Amino acid sequence: MAVLVLGTVALDDVKTPSGVKKAMLGGSAAHFSMSARLFDDVHIVGVVGKDFPKAHRDFLRRKGVDLSALTVADGKTFRWSGEYKKEDLNSAITHDTRLGVLADYVPALTDRQRGMSHVFLANLAPVVQERLLSLMKAPALVGLDTMNLWINTALKDLRRLIKRADIFVLNDGETRLLTGERNLVKAAAAILAMGPRVVVVKKGEHGVYVVSRKFQFAFPAYPIGRVVDPTGAGDTFAGGMFGYLSKVRRMDEKSFRRAVIYGSVLASFNVEGFGMAKTAPLTIREADRRLKEYLQFSATA
Amino acid sequence: MAVLVLGTVALDDVKTPSGVKKAMLGGSAAHFSMSARLFDDVHIVGVVGKDFPKAHRDFLRRKGVDLSALTVADGKTFRWSGEYKKEDLNSAITHDTRLGVLADYVPALTDRQRGMSHVFLANLAPVVQERLLSLMKAPALVGLDTMNLWINTALKDLRRLIKRADIFVLNDGETRLLTGERNLVKAAAAILAMGPRVVVVKKGEHGVYVVSRKFQFAFPAYPIGRVVDPTGAGDTFAGGMFGYLSKVRRMDEKSFRRAVIYGSVLASFNVEGFGMAKTAPLTIREADRRLKEYLQFSATA
Repeated sequence: MAVLVLGTVALDDVKTPSGVKKAMLGGSAAHFSMSARLFDDVHIVGVVGKDFPKAHRDFLRRKGVDLSALTVADGKTFRWSGEYKKEDLNSAITHDTRLGVLADYVPALTDRQRGMSHVFLANLAPVVQERLLSLMKAPALVGLDTMNLWINTALKDLRRLIKRADIFVLNDGETRLLTGERNLVKAAAAILAMGPRVVVVKKGEHGVYVVSRKFQFAFPAYPIGRVVDPTGAGDTFAGGMFGYLSKVRRMDEKSFRRAVIYGSVLASFNVEGFGMAKTAPLTIREADRRLKEYLQFSATA
Repeated sequence: MAVLVLGTVALDDVKTPSGVKKAMLGGSAAHFSMSARLFDDVHIVGVVGKDFPKAHRDFLRRKGVDLSALTVADGKTFRWSGEYKKEDLNSAITHDTRLGVLADYVPALTDRQRGMSHVFLANLAPVVQERLLSLMKAPALVGLDTMNLWINTALKDLRRLIKRADIFVLNDGETRLLTGERNLVKAAAAILAMGPRVVVVKKGEHGVYVVSRKFQFAFPAYPIGRVVDPTGAGDTFAGGMFGYLSKVRRMDEKSFRRAVIYGSVLASFNVEGFGMAKTAPLTIREADRRLKEYLQFSATA
């Protein structure tokens, strides 16, 4: 079995209080793959330019990520340049976004990939996400992520997708933006009424709140005293959660809770280093060690 | 056994998106008593003016609160007037603070009260908190709360008290203000180094983070879709936590976790109504019903 993830593969320039890094491997699909790979095979669907370093491609392959649906197009790889200030390490300040080859990207899949059951639509334009979904034969589980840009500029497309998603993942700011409701409990309920089976609200350092028609729960974040670079934390979370669900092939409440915990634990590694510095070398054994600590940390009974 | 709580007994004028209420019974000691009374006898140490309504006094007595250390002084009862806006129900905007009889207040205790073991110094000027502490013979457990005003204007006095406190309770904003550190994990560690045995960081809708030299944990808040009035939520939390600790007479990690959960659960009732509308009629049976729900909600394993 395997997970198909559509999203960006990017070159990131990031500045945080801990330092500056240029042209790091980043993007929603790449970060997603770094945690999902711990549970299942991962196929990235996306596009890069001819400038995309061979070293990055080799790195992803070494990590077991299937790149047969990663298109190489004429032009430049998507590039994001951003900064996090000491006062609010939760919020990125975008300095520059160069779409490059992403501007004209149309996803393409092999026939085998079209038959895959677990597909995650990581942050990308809703029309591209929808296109990918239309290629899938009969997906059993569809995950969806988005960002404020699409809520502001492509709401109609996004709402069609939300209706079709099994699991809709978004952060607290996006939850409020999408609903105009400040109370997250009420906002998440409003989003649930838009059609997905489960709404997962990521709250960064404050943890995660999850609601479906059958259950709701909230977990704290694993405590991190030094956040180096939060870029990709949300994608790492989604990859851990979705990868686990793909592995166990269940969607009951207990499995879902464990999936969300894996997502949280893996995201906590992500923020401890620049880019994928901490998630790339990670083994499931190390993840399980922190998971055990986390269960102790968060135990209410 | 019993809990002694020093704090304000106030008349509150509150405006929230749900409405406007005038001259409600409020204050840190009063809100604290409403949850602590569910576990143990509560003695309020504080002051009111001659204008303090007999109905409020009778109400507290009916709830089993001992008022023998509630001084009645010439002058007006402490009055707080504030507002919460829809955009941020977590933060009060203070319109007016009239100290009245609080300005010249010196706490006094009966000899029996001086021998009590569990004393909580709810939000009040640090010099008054210190005075009360100096009256106690040999308290076994000292709790401390404060506010941004005292961090800004009486830091030296406050730091002496922090050193003597067993449990120091403060909110996320105060945690950052006191340490100048944005990361709550790091900030709480810095406060722990100031001397208390346990630091309890209240994060409102995001729950609570607790750290000591021996353990650390974090819990989410019970989900509340409609916050009517958050005034006194922190005091209700502290009263539930401290009242439970007084009842069980233990300070091991397991008891402390349960104490914090009771605090969280009781605070969730507080915000659902104006003033003490929801905490005043509460029985331990109803509290336990929500606690059971909460344990289900927050279970990570």
